[in-house]
Amino acid sequence: MLNIGIDLGGTGIKAGLVDERGNILYKLSCPTLVERGHEAVIHDMAQLSLRVIAESGHDLSEVSSIGIGIPGIMDQATGVVPFCTNLAWHNVPLVKLMQQEIDKPVYVNNDATVAGLAESVAGVSAGSRSSVFVTLGTGVGGGVILDGKVFMGEHGVATEIGHMITVAGGELCTCGNRGCWERYASATAIIREGRRFCEAHPDCPLAREVGGDLSKIEARTVIDLAKAGDPDCVSLFDNYCYHLTVGIVNLINMYDPEIIALGGGVSKTGQFLLDKVNALLPEMIFFKDMPHARIELARLSNDAGIIGAAMLGAQEG
Amino acid sequence: MLNIGIDLGGTGIKAGLVDERGNILYKLSCPTLVERGHEAVIHDMAQLSLRVIAESGHDLSEVSSIGIGIPGIMDQATGVVPFCTNLAWHNVPLVKLMQQEIDKPVYVNNDATVAGLAESVAGVSAGSRSSVFVTLGTGVGGGVILDGKVFMGEHGVATEIGHMITVAGGELCTCGNRGCWERYASATAIIREGRRFCEAHPDCPLAREVGGDLSKIEARTVIDLAKAGDPDCVSLFDNYCYHLTVGIVNLINMYDPEIIALGGGVSKTGQFLLDKVNALLPEMIFFKDMPHARIELARLSNDAGIIGAAMLGAQEG
Repeated sequence: MLNIGIDLGGTGIKAGLVDERGNILYKLSCPTLVERGHEAVIHDMAQLSLRVIAESGHDLSEVSSIGIGIPGIMDQATGVVPFCTNLAWHNVPLVKLMQQEIDKPVYVNNDATVAGLAESVAGVSAGSRSSVFVTLGTGVGGGVILDGKVFMGEHGVATEIGHMITVAGGELCTCGNRGCWERYASATAIIREGRRFCEAHPDCPLAREVGGDLSKIEARTVIDLAKAGDPDCVSLFDNYCYHLTVGIVNLINMYDPEIIALGGGVSKTGQFLLDKVNALLPEMIFFKDMPHARIELARLSNDAGIIGAAMLGAQEG
Repeated sequence: MLNIGIDLGGTGIKAGLVDERGNILYKLSCPTLVERGHEAVIHDMAQLSLRVIAESGHDLSEVSSIGIGIPGIMDQATGVVPFCTNLAWHNVPLVKLMQQEIDKPVYVNNDATVAGLAESVAGVSAGSRSSVFVTLGTGVGGGVILDGKVFMGEHGVATEIGHMITVAGGELCTCGNRGCWERYASATAIIREGRRFCEAHPDCPLAREVGGDLSKIEARTVIDLAKAGDPDCVSLFDNYCYHLTVGIVNLINMYDPEIIALGGGVSKTGQFLLDKVNALLPEMIFFKDMPHARIELARLSNDAGIIGAAMLGAQEG
């Protein structure tokens, strides 16, 4: 059977027709244009899905379900999205409105959760029973697969791993707490620490790299200089990797998965990142003589949203 | 059917005959005498179990299984206890040796996990599908029940919640890391902070309470003075409750259970503790408008080890 997977973001909508192994048979995208309101966005998602089916030469009757990954959470009991900042949505009955457009089962979940499901079906975690997917981007998101299924918790608020507190009393987070992992393990953290360092050391290579304009410092600027051996940036990046590993240790202590897959912008650092984490991990694991999760780089990149969303229905069926 | 539950500690062995609802029909105890070596201890566990069955007027044929809670972990694949500090055990084939004594299925798990299972069957979490039990004692241990079953993780090293890092770079832990939750949420933490405060303020009411002998400060000393309104101890205990709540927030963000049950020595503080945690929690929860876990005091106290151990077999069957 085939499923439609939709990756709904603040800027773009991507829809794809996906087979049961997680292969995308055909995909299309269009801008989200959030400001038009949720009804127009949902209508476009439906139209895009129908075009994908038609242009791929398939028929709606072959499609089992429609899955949607959203940059927020949905109340699974009601099918309503209580709030979604990036979409400016508030109490949107997404499942009902989507089913009025296309009469199929509709499944919705958080975009990081959906990407984690995709990795577990068709990516780096394929074949594993349990895995944690971690997105290292502007923030830190997570998707947890236990016993081959998306782990949601009792109230659907589990796996907010970016907001586990790893530095109590530390940096103020957007959520109101201090010291969330996200404040230390996101690309944003690398940028913040790079800028702070340059403010204290205006003549350092990092500051010179951006011509003294600290607003131009990106995570990549720091990482590239670290790779090139600049001692300041090595130190900044090592500190980042320490805090990243702290959270990974917590994930192991809590979920003990087979695989922890790192995705998102910072994961593009590749082996340089993985080597540092794997060097720190053995000393920080609680049971030092027992096997533990492998740390891997996520593989599916931009298609993870479509594949994982399609799999939401597949795993229900 | 009936099951035998054994609570194996560093000082004492307790064994009980338990019905399927978690009622103890009969129980006995004896000293562990660790220094005799594991074979004598296992023999005593078996003899104690047989005495429990005989003295209760039941027959071995009525017993489905034997469950054992140990102060460590067992490799579930091999039935071997790799190490157990409190028992001075190293690579002990517990399941095999116990079955040589009594030919029944033998199930073994960590004592905090076992206590969590007991609470979920016959204690404060009874009737819930998911719960996290937290022991606040010398250290911090945990037992996680998901979908009505003990959650073990892929390698049996999950739910080491006391060693999640909540203060990266903080207090040195016995495990070698810095800033484990256990360093901030255990009775040991209250004692440490009380002593430190007295060292800096030798004339404070807490120091006077113990006649200047700081080695006499117990967690209870600080808590009792806090309850009596001493501002220093209120401040010490508030700080403790903040760190306790940090970990609870992390448990909610990770497991999102129905109930988080607090057990162990510090939980005997009762409503005074619960009120402080519940006052902090709403502001620290990520999804502030969504329902989340209730925080409760554990109920089974000393019998939790026997009941939970007996339930290990019951939940397998």
